Amino acid sequence: MEVTVAATQMHCTWEIEANIERAESLVHEAADRGAQVILVQELFETPYFCIDEQNRHFDLAHTLQDQPTIKRMQKIARERKLVLPVSFFENAGLAYYNSIAIIDADGSIVGFYRKSHIPDFPLYEEKFYFSPGDTGFRVFDTRYGRIGVGICWDQWFPEAARAMVLQGAEMLFYPTAIGSELHDADLDSKDHWQMVMRGHAAANMVPVIASNRIGEEKSDDLALEFYGSSFISDHLGTLVEEADRNSQAVLTHCFNLDECREYRRNWGVFRDRRPDLYRPLLSLDGLNPWPGV
Amino acid sequence: MEVTVAATQMHCTWEIEANIERAESLVHEAADRGAQVILVQELFETPYFCIDEQNRHFDLAHTLQDQPTIKRMQKIARERKLVLPVSFFENAGLAYYNSIAIIDADGSIVGFYRKSHIPDFPLYEEKFYFSPGDTGFRVFDTRYGRIGVGICWDQWFPEAARAMVLQGAEMLFYPTAIGSELHDADLDSKDHWQMVMRGHAAANMVPVIASNRIGEEKSDDLALEFYGSSFISDHLGTLVEEADRNSQAVLTHCFNLDECREYRRNWGVFRDRRPDLYRPLLSLDGLNPWPGV
Repeated sequence: MEVTVAATQMHCTWEIEANIERAESLVHEAADRGAQVILVQELFETPYFCIDEQNRHFDLAHTLQDQPTIKRMQKIARERKLVLPVSFFENAGLAYYNSIAIIDADGSIVGFYRKSHIPDFPLYEEKFYFSPGDTGFRVFDTRYGRIGVGICWDQWFPEAARAMVLQGAEMLFYPTAIGSELHDADLDSKDHWQMVMRGHAAANMVPVIASNRIGEEKSDDLALEFYGSSFISDHLGTLVEEADRNSQAVLTHCFNLDECREYRRNWGVFRDRRPDLYRPLLSLDGLNPWPGV
Repeated sequence: MEVTVAATQMHCTWEIEANIERAESLVHEAADRGAQVILVQELFETPYFCIDEQNRHFDLAHTLQDQPTIKRMQKIARERKLVLPVSFFENAGLAYYNSIAIIDADGSIVGFYRKSHIPDFPLYEEKFYFSPGDTGFRVFDTRYGRIGVGICWDQWFPEAARAMVLQGAEMLFYPTAIGSELHDADLDSKDHWQMVMRGHAAANMVPVIASNRIGEEKSDDLALEFYGSSFISDHLGTLVEEADRNSQAVLTHCFNLDECREYRRNWGVFRDRRPDLYRPLLSLDGLNPWPGV
């Protein structure tokens, strides 16, 4: 089966309705170019509010059942026969998560995922807002294949990519918000960021699609410059499409999922894994297994 | 601590003594250029005999205690203050392994490792010769840092790299024998092979050093062309040194291990791992845990 995927990137401001409309227009543009699975960046409805720690931002969260932007995206998905992973700030009971709903091409929600790995750095204060996700790594059977979805910081963890591919993911999608660092103005993690995900693609032999923000966002005297560079990697880790650091963009690429699946089978790594030796991965220190695992 | 590492590559024939002397001369050349940890390719004493399945090749194996080339390399290591991982065909009791002894800069053997992941393809018939290793992934405290060593096919598995780094490996070394494929003369896995290991480097933020063979080797009507391209990657996955596909070569590069360690600490991924969610990795199918793990 051939599937055309898209990665998008855009700037966000505190004009929430304008952000959503911009995202919708990028989705339509990608669909016009033949894309069937279209990825919009992480938490695109608002600025990346995790730039600092403000209680009032909890007001931005919605339950999955009551999330207005997801409903708008469901309508577009149904009308244009698209699969849309939609990132949102989730309120569930007394907890808050960094979550994503996966909308199938008939407009239904096939499932959701809660970000497992939560960063915490100056300008990226996510541990203040989000509990670590409790869903585990999930795959979603859509009209255009079984897909895996991680969220931003998840993309740095080979364990997450592997867990999704072992469950049958044929492509991995990562919506993201990453850019400058407060403590080191010279640090540019762009190439490192891409390389880790290209490594997941190559090791697991699945295409990887990543969407990042662009532009500068500020709060009080803090400023964060996102570096864009959204990209699509093929199943060997080759960068086949890449956006620049500053421009609004829609990237599309067509993959033959049958060819990728055949490559995964014939290459033999999934025959030769040694789960009996992987217990160190269930620890933080290489020695002491996490309680209960 | 600054450490200079080396990757080497060379051609092998059935003149075993000439192969060993060639390896020794590459080690001396690397040492002359300041290298302190020097990697020679997999099973360098002989041609890559796994090209086909021949019972007589079991005669090539030695016990770790009685391995003449390791003794020669211990002498060089002691005289020139080198750390040398030495690949060899191991006979242990009734079993045979694809193993490596790690020689410290005083000439002592600090430990050994048995290849965990065993390939099996036309021209790469390793499951005929080697039992899957029973040591698990190991790290070795040497004069020039704690190093992890995988062997060839191990390099395709993110789990192996992660397990070594979780145990404190500061650099990963992979001796290798890889080249053409029998069933697909057009398939060139060189870029894919490098990308997977550059991904390990980037995800774990440790330098990776890989040594491969060069030249054509034949058995009856079979022929295997190794593609060299030995390389050194920095801790961000950047290819900092690379040999060509055909030439005997010595690559050297100096790393500041303290800077790499600081990067690993500050980047936060080892704080934010989720061992409670990684159980799918202890299965082959993403669902059913391997018996006993």
